[in-house]
Amino acid sequence: MKKAAFVTLLALFALCALNANPLHAADALPSWNDGPAKQAILSFVKEVTDKSGPKYVEPEDRIATFDQDGTLWVSHPLYTQAMFALDRVRELAHKHLEWKNKEPFKAVIAGDREAMAKFSETDWELIVAATHAGMTNEAFLEIVKQWLATAKHSRFKRPYTELVYQPMIEVMDYLRANDFKTYIVTGGGQEFVRVYSKRVYSIPPEQVVGSSILTKYEYQNGKPVLMREPKVFFIDDNAGKAIGINLFIGKRPYAAFGNSGGDREMLEWTQAGDGPRLMMLVLHDDAKREYAYGPAGGLPDTKVGTFSQALMDEAKKNGWVVISMKYDWRRIFAFEQ
Amino acid sequence: MKKAAFVTLLALFALCALNANPLHAADALPSWNDGPAKQAILSFVKEVTDKSGPKYVEPEDRIATFDQDGTLWVSHPLYTQAMFALDRVRELAHKHLEWKNKEPFKAVIAGDREAMAKFSETDWELIVAATHAGMTNEAFLEIVKQWLATAKHSRFKRPYTELVYQPMIEVMDYLRANDFKTYIVTGGGQEFVRVYSKRVYSIPPEQVVGSSILTKYEYQNGKPVLMREPKVFFIDDNAGKAIGINLFIGKRPYAAFGNSGGDREMLEWTQAGDGPRLMMLVLHDDAKREYAYGPAGGLPDTKVGTFSQALMDEAKKNGWVVISMKYDWRRIFAFEQ
Repeated sequence: MKKAAFVTLLALFALCALNANPLHAADALPSWNDGPAKQAILSFVKEVTDKSGPKYVEPEDRIATFDQDGTLWVSHPLYTQAMFALDRVRELAHKHLEWKNKEPFKAVIAGDREAMAKFSETDWELIVAATHAGMTNEAFLEIVKQWLATAKHSRFKRPYTELVYQPMIEVMDYLRANDFKTYIVTGGGQEFVRVYSKRVYSIPPEQVVGSSILTKYEYQNGKPVLMREPKVFFIDDNAGKAIGINLFIGKRPYAAFGNSGGDREMLEWTQAGDGPRLMMLVLHDDAKREYAYGPAGGLPDTKVGTFSQALMDEAKKNGWVVISMKYDWRRIFAFEQ
Repeated sequence: MKKAAFVTLLALFALCALNANPLHAADALPSWNDGPAKQAILSFVKEVTDKSGPKYVEPEDRIATFDQDGTLWVSHPLYTQAMFALDRVRELAHKHLEWKNKEPFKAVIAGDREAMAKFSETDWELIVAATHAGMTNEAFLEIVKQWLATAKHSRFKRPYTELVYQPMIEVMDYLRANDFKTYIVTGGGQEFVRVYSKRVYSIPPEQVVGSSILTKYEYQNGKPVLMREPKVFFIDDNAGKAIGINLFIGKRPYAAFGNSGGDREMLEWTQAGDGPRLMMLVLHDDAKREYAYGPAGGLPDTKVGTFSQALMDEAKKNGWVVISMKYDWRRIFAFEQ
């Protein structure tokens, strides 16, 4: 065989192989600083993909789950979906004149931030019922899409979908390049996240596990529709994350990423499996580039994505890796230079 | 380039291409007789994979859903999972001496077929609660696995997992070879089917949508487990199939296969989408090789997998393709010669 042909052959083999073999590129995580967090990810992937090693995991079992709010994108000062719901209340107010004198809507319409900060779970349920139900599922997806196209974050002045953490995008890409199936497992609304999960995270709708309300099968002009009902169906948070993972995936993750108390059971459930498991928690300790809150480690307390000292203690005891935004992430957002 | 090298290159290209391109092998469905049903499948796949045609569907949108009982495997004289539940009642009877005088358990233990045939939905709920709950999910999967390894069908004298329809296995293989993602969407238990879906249908657990009971997150010896509770969580039948598809997949199928009234809404939901859609119903009209029941078309009536005349009428009106087991399937089971 002539040399040119041989080289072409080699190139072709390489192309074929690239599709089938693990990727161990040293620069797969360029937005990460060297350190124990980055090292934990690289070591884990190396081990589970080493066919001759004791920790090898079959590709079909490679499941990685990611919380969204505070783990994949900014969740302060308030969850993005809550911002959406508040905007919807204001937009729908002219159709509900009674809201002017009815809490929690009154506070939202009046822009009373102090009152809103104290909203109870019941308040939020009323707001969700008023803004997320009473329409077909298709119509809801369109409303979310429209909102995302125009709404901007108060501090960063950018669309919310740009406020995703570049280091986590790299982790998801890296895991997928090594035959992991990546899932979002969010306390947020499953349908809400599905609107942009593919575009923003390269995660298709069927790999989004989240909270949901009841839907009802009905006919409109002879065509079936799914109507969204003002009633909770499933809350994918806390223990619900382990339950949701089993319900929707039916496999135990080998890697799980979170940032708050709502992710505790997901990480416990992941770790309870045999073999190599990677559990990681993002700690928001970077007020300058993003936000700083805990109250773990003496950081400011918060009601939105609380990382308690108890969670930090459990992480230390169980060998979960805590990611410091400040020290582990060289770059937080793709738009940074 | 020398001829030998050129041929090797061509072969390699062909290999690479095989992985990426649609498969249009004329013999992809060898267990099907030529006829409108086989033709409908071949035409549909040809259209949706023809990139230059008007009905092309992007690979990521190619979703196909399959009912299980009566569509993929035998469901007479009774659903396999019901046989499992009845066996479990008999096995657990010595721990529940009170069952001897308590319906519906009394009838099961006494082997009273006439009484069992008249069981109401409430009777079955009691049986499911007594046999499918009160253990960890892991323990349940193991019990199902053990049962499947030994239980045999009364007429065919074979394990239930051998009683799958070879023509449908071929359809699933054919669709997957053309980049379809295949899902089971069953009224049966999601966890029950997950035990063997990969082995029998090449469908992984995360692509099984089914009915489920509540699970509860608990700790046993410091380790988290999911306990199965005797309470229905979701019934994936009738309208529940459309709801379940939206909940678990979040995409509308392009092809859906069923065999009874429980599949009606799944087919309606599939058809309500834009573009090319394939809706098929298996009609059990072959008492000799399998079973014959309807009551559509004057076939014997049944409570198990009823195919009513109303469903047949809707199928005709909507252009759904009815598969005749007798005429469309050359071979029904893989073990036939």
